[in-house]
Formats: sequence, structure tokens, C-alpha cells
Amino acid sequence: MASAVRHTIQTSGQGDAHDLTALVARAAGGARSGLATVFVVGSTAAVTTIEFEPGAVADLNAVFERLAPRRGVYRHHERWGDDNGSSHVRAAMLGPSLTIPIVDGELTLGTWQQVMLLELDTRPREREIVIQILQGEATAEGPC
Amino acid sequence: MASAVRHTIQTSGQGDAHDLTALVARAAGGARSGLATVFVVGSTAAVTTIEFEPGAVADLNAVFERLAPRRGVYRHHERWGDDNGSSHVRAAMLGPSLTIPIVDGELTLGTWQQVMLLELDTRPREREIVIQILQGEATAEGPC
Amino acid sequence: MASAVRHTIQTSGQGDAHDLTALVARAAGGARSGLATVFVVGSTAAVTTIEFEPGAVADLNAVFERLAPRRGVYRHHERWGDDNGSSHVRAAMLGPSLTIPIVDGELTLGTWQQVMLLELDTRPREREIVIQILQGEATAEGPC
Repeated sequence: MASAVRHTIQTSGQGDAHDLTALVARAAGGARSGLATVFVVGSTAAVTTIEFEPGAVADLNAVFERLAPRRGVYRHHERWGDDNGSSHVRAAMLGPSLTIPIVDGELTLGTWQQVMLLELDTRPREREIVIQILQGEATAEGPC
Repeated sequence: MASAVRHTIQTSGQGDAHDLTALVARAAGGARSGLATVFVVGSTAAVTTIEFEPGAVADLNAVFERLAPRRGVYRHHERWGDDNGSSHVRAAMLGPSLTIPIVDGELTLGTWQQVMLLELDTRPREREIVIQILQGEATAEGPC
Repeated sequence: MASAVRHTIQTSGQGDAHDLTALVARAAGGARSGLATVFVVGSTAAVTTIEFEPGAVADLNAVFERLAPRRGVYRHHERWGDDNGSSHVRAAMLGPSLTIPIVDGELTLGTWQQVMLLELDTRPREREIVIQILQGEATAEGPC
């Protein structure tokens, strides 16, 4: 069985982080066993897990700022007159997708491990998140 | 239901990027709801999403060249006489796997979000890609 | 069909790597076609693939040490008096999850591509790994 939900989340620009854990848990509600895949539509945002507190999020953003500085020189800018080359690099590195097991009716996340949407674009965006729940069917037993 | 397809892709060496989106869409064709997992076999290539245009790809490669320079010093080189330590580091960071929801018969990718195979090895390679489509069964209704 | 196994692994601290390939293969044993998801519980460890030999692992750790130095300044430290800001940044970048296709009864890993748990915390930890196997049902053929 598969069931998908979509959510729209308004972000404020590069580095803005949103805790998606409650949304994913709600989407998975009722499933006993399977996989929850969280996916962000678009190439300038990413999904991962983190201890969701402002310090850890700021540290991750600071490391990305050293690695792919917002005001750096990017060939992507030449094409469209965009200013979000840093966004594309960071998003490709983090990835748009996260898959979490559902076991005994629960996501297997740790207590201090939250699902995070990280906005990487240089301007506010309306982000679409897709959460797909794929359940394992129980083995068919006995005669059909 | 599960169905897998394999593709072989010839690459030209480190930084060579291939857009896999059409292959993934074709493999998913016919599935109404489920997950598409794209996986590259081997430890010196990776799969992620990006706006697939030469500038963004070059920017990602440039950041990796600063982070794990091709002509840097790597302990992996001591073992085999290889020259691809940078390849292993970059591939482990990006990861070999990407999972995308299929909802209402479509991959939930954005318009400017393509599935990319990124070659990271220092020489041309023949890459094997596996695309696994796992569909959710509709709930069994009525008598068997 | 879904089946999950959990394993506990004792680690020795930041940079300690464990090859999970045999555990994942055993968990997948018997499945003909589907997905294997490997997930580490917690926000200071990660799962990826690598050629599992000490040189490549050391190279990855060395790049992370330049990118997010263990003895760097982190805002996460201010909150809890922790010293593992580098762990959170590295873990969020690598990610806690890996999904591998199972095709014809086998994981589609390459010969030199192993599934690795990488401890990133600054102290030894008892890590919990979840391996979820989701099989595709064969299409029902013939009369029910």
C-alpha cells in the first residue's frame, strides 16, 4: 500500500530550516511496517536529519558558507543572471530525499534526530514537500 | 510490485555528468504510486539531483575540487597505486542512491530538477545504473 | 512484505568506521526483488558506501576534518556544553540513510562498494542500526 501527502512550506531564504518530523509522523500514522520517503521538489533546497536546535543549524550553514560562499563566483550565474549558484551546489551535496524505516508503527528516528527541510535558495520560496509512505503487505497465508 | 531495469552508461572521467531523468521516468512508466530508487554500482560515482545545465554542474565540480583536490595527497593511493582518492571521498559524500516518490503516475521532480549521474573517477568508466520501482498495491477490497 | 532487523554496534568515536555489508545482505536474504534501507538512529553518525579499506576511510575523515574541524568553534557547544558540533555538521551532510535495490535476490552493490556506518560523535557510542527490507509482491497471475 502506498499513500502520499503534499505540504507547502513558506521559507525565508538561504539557511532557513523547518522541522518536518511531525508532518512525517502524521503521514506515517497507521502504517505498521514500511518506508517513509521525504522529498523536496526543486533543486535549491534539501532534506536531511539533524538535532533541530538553532546552534546546530547555524553551524551547518556556516560550514556551507565556507564551502560554497553565497557571494562566490559561479558559472550558473552567467546563464540566467541568477545569484543562487551557492544554492545549487549545497542542495546537490545534501540531496533532496530521505528515507526512514517504519517499524512496529513508528519512524525509527532518534530522540534528538529530526527531519529537516533546509532552504538553500537566496530568496524566500514556497516549498513543496512530498511524503510517500510505502507499507509492506503482510504475507498472504492460507488458501486464497 | 517491484520491477528493476539496468542501464550501462559510458563516462569520460571525473566531473562528467549524465542526465538520467528520462531513463527513470521510463522505468517508472505505468506505476501509479510508489518509490523509484536510482542506484549507481561502484564507489567512485554518485547520484543526486541538480538543475542540469553546464554551469551548475561545473560549480559543483569546482567546489569538490577545492574540498578534495584531484591532485591532493590520499592514503588510498598508497594501497593500490591508484590516483583516485579524491573520487572515493567525493562519492562517499554525495552517495550512490536517490529515492523519488511516484504519485499519481508521475515522479515528483521539479521542472528544473534533474536526476544526475556524476562520474568521479579519474578515468573513463562504464557505469551500471539500477532503477528499482516499488509500487504500492491497492488495498485488497471485497472477497478474494 | 516488509521485515526489519535492528543491530547494536559499539563504536570508538569520531571517524570509526564499520562495514555493514554482511548485515545488510543477511537481512535481505530470501528477498527476490525490492529495497533495502539502512538507517542509523541518532544525529551524530552516518551511513554511506565506500571502498572499505583504511586508506579511503582515513581520506574521508581528513577531508571532514578540514571542512568541519573537531576543535573548531560551533554554536551548538554554547547550548549544551557539548563538544560535538563537528559531529552534527558532518552527520547532516552525509545523511543517516541509504537505500539499495534488491534485484534477482541480490543487493546491487559493486565488488568494491561496501555499506559503511561512520561514527562522527566525539566519544564512543552504542549505535543502533535499522535495516528495513521491503519486497515487491509478484504480480498475481491466473485466477485468484
